[in-house]
Amino acid sequence: MPKDLAETLLAGEEVFSGRLLKVYRDRVRLPDGSESVREYIRHPGAVAIVALLDDDRVVLERQFRYPLGRVLVEIPAGKLEQGEDHLETGKRELLEETGYVAREWRRLGEIHNAIGYSDEVIEIWLARGLEQRQQQLAEGEFLEVFSLPLAEAQAMARDGRLTDVKTIVGLLWAAGPAG
Amino acid sequence: MPKDLAETLLAGEEVFSGRLLKVYRDRVRLPDGSESVREYIRHPGAVAIVALLDDDRVVLERQFRYPLGRVLVEIPAGKLEQGEDHLETGKRELLEETGYVAREWRRLGEIHNAIGYSDEVIEIWLARGLEQRQQQLAEGEFLEVFSLPLAEAQAMARDGRLTDVKTIVGLLWAAGPAG
Repeated sequence: MPKDLAETLLAGEEVFSGRLLKVYRDRVRLPDGSESVREYIRHPGAVAIVALLDDDRVVLERQFRYPLGRVLVEIPAGKLEQGEDHLETGKRELLEETGYVAREWRRLGEIHNAIGYSDEVIEIWLARGLEQRQQQLAEGEFLEVFSLPLAEAQAMARDGRLTDVKTIVGLLWAAGPAG
Repeated sequence: MPKDLAETLLAGEEVFSGRLLKVYRDRVRLPDGSESVREYIRHPGAVAIVALLDDDRVVLERQFRYPLGRVLVEIPAGKLEQGEDHLETGKRELLEETGYVAREWRRLGEIHNAIGYSDEVIEIWLARGLEQRQQQLAEGEFLEVFSLPLAEAQAMARDGRLTDVKTIVGLLWAAGPAG
């Protein structure tokens, strides 16, 4: 990285530890030698899945998102649990949320979604060769699963009808994906 | 919204109030009548700008992002200040960060970037007819401005070389944007 942009830690503390969120406040040295404060969330990382049925429909969910107070359309996704690698998380979340297992998995890339105040990284995977098993929603988890033709969902990602970032990027990457 | 997915507030409190972040914890009623807790950040909203030079190069920035500990390539962006509308924020941030003013502004759409724990909404605007004035970085703000041909930046957004979500979505929407 360009050395003259880097900020370095002087002292840090955890300032909030909740059920979901952990917030940290660090005193940092700025590139010009002055000091400042950075507040941010540490996140375990997440996996989002573009799951394609054999007829080229993509599996989507409607889920109420409390911070926004409304239902959003999303691709399946979830946080890494302790000790899991990304592929394991993807398989677990796809099965739990939608009831599908997939024979083929391919990593499309990763996104940084809130770089001003979170270290969250979301890996996006493409899953094909789906077979329906049994949905296994966690207690307190409510969502509706549906599907759309991939081309239609991609049009919605391009024209602004979809607004969730992992969903927009996942659908657009599913067309001509990264390594 | 589907009524059976909605969660309703029972009681809420601010649990952390920092310089940048405000964290809230609400007790909520879930769709099945049970109770749970939601922790989330309230964010003032932001504007990100796809600024196109007359030779079809797009204005980009390298900025150190402390939560990730590295420099990312991004389009110009910033938070709404008290009383600002989105267009005012876009004009202010573009000028402050890059030194450009623009004659033409068009709203491309909005994205929700961290729906699990933040109410942040980022509006994405396209700016054309750029003229160079004087960059006005805030104290403690360090970034490098550069430009790339739009087509090259869009290729980087498609193949995973760019990872910041507002940048990926903004560049891809700049091709065939929403209303």
